[in-house]
Amino acid sequence: MQFSSALLENAVNEFAKLPGIGRKTALRLVLHLLKQDQEDVQHFGEVVSRMRSEIRFCQRCHNVADGDICSICANSMRKQEMICVVENIRDVIALESTQQFNGTYHVIGGVISPLDGIGPSQLNIDTLIMRIQKEGTTEVIFALSPTIQGDTTIYYIQKKLPDTVKVTTISRGIAFGGELEYADEMTLARSLQNRLPIESYVSTR
Amino acid sequence: MQFSSALLENAVNEFAKLPGIGRKTALRLVLHLLKQDQEDVQHFGEVVSRMRSEIRFCQRCHNVADGDICSICANSMRKQEMICVVENIRDVIALESTQQFNGTYHVIGGVISPLDGIGPSQLNIDTLIMRIQKEGTTEVIFALSPTIQGDTTIYYIQKKLPDTVKVTTISRGIAFGGELEYADEMTLARSLQNRLPIESYVSTR
Repeated sequence: MQFSSALLENAVNEFAKLPGIGRKTALRLVLHLLKQDQEDVQHFGEVVSRMRSEIRFCQRCHNVADGDICSICANSMRKQEMICVVENIRDVIALESTQQFNGTYHVIGGVISPLDGIGPSQLNIDTLIMRIQKEGTTEVIFALSPTIQGDTTIYYIQKKLPDTVKVTTISRGIAFGGELEYADEMTLARSLQNRLPIESYVSTR
Repeated sequence: MQFSSALLENAVNEFAKLPGIGRKTALRLVLHLLKQDQEDVQHFGEVVSRMRSEIRFCQRCHNVADGDICSICANSMRKQEMICVVENIRDVIALESTQQFNGTYHVIGGVISPLDGIGPSQLNIDTLIMRIQKEGTTEVIFALSPTIQGDTTIYYIQKKLPDTVKVTTISRGIAFGGELEYADEMTLARSLQNRLPIESYVSTR
């Protein structure tokens, strides 16, 4: 693409660095911003750079935070002795959107994957174990990817936990709206093994 | 979506204002920026707000420019007596990408569309006429949308031009790689009427 303005070209190049945004889309976004008020665009730029420079990570659970401790850990209405272990911030947002969980989180930052060179020491597992021991956590819920790596991670962490802690994982099975014939055999087999009594099924709807 | 950080939420809201970017995509972009170096994100914010505050429009052709005059108008290698009339900046970029045009442009900012309340006075038509008279332009090429509104605009401007100016429009017909059976009747009829001698067809390939 040929631009007659270096300012325009630089802005397009910056947008095109973002994931899933090609040069044509970047140009569309930049031309949209060009039509907005100067103040609004200034605000856009400031909010984005402030986000990067001022955001912090919760010292307790590694979730994003505006201060030392995130708003979930700081909330005394939530069950602090219950920890849901997730891979990343996006999973926290997804689980929070269900409005079904009233405990706290621990973001471990990925799953153990030797092929990708990710071992337990690269993840926030030590802080999780320490936190559980220190705080006298009563329940740990794993909400990790349903993959071999996710299962390995669960197995690794679980072996390090005190026996007094109740350990569970989110259930796996056929998704709502999913069709049996398109489910893979592994999922179908598991959902048969872990079949639920009808009462509990009805009450969760 | 529930965020545990106001900084994150503000950044997502800003991205979600952009056209074609929903909240999930906005979150993906923001989390990507969160992983980048602080300097790079700072640079992103600065480039975007600088683009809006410092960009100017060419006083001669209304294209984007870094100064009073855009780089196309300032380029003495281009045929200044030849003007291609386009609707917007994006059309200039598209035509420049062909590397087939060596004249100048005039961005009129849209087409005459009474139903949308756009009359000739809202467009940069007066400056075009004045420019043609003042500069002694020899050729005007219209590259407007192939719609009723585009044709109306061409007709309106053409009537105001001196007889000495050669006036043309970019050709309309079947696109390269297009298939005859899927072309609309209007396009097919026009491409029959404006059929080309084989020599000129071959030489333009």
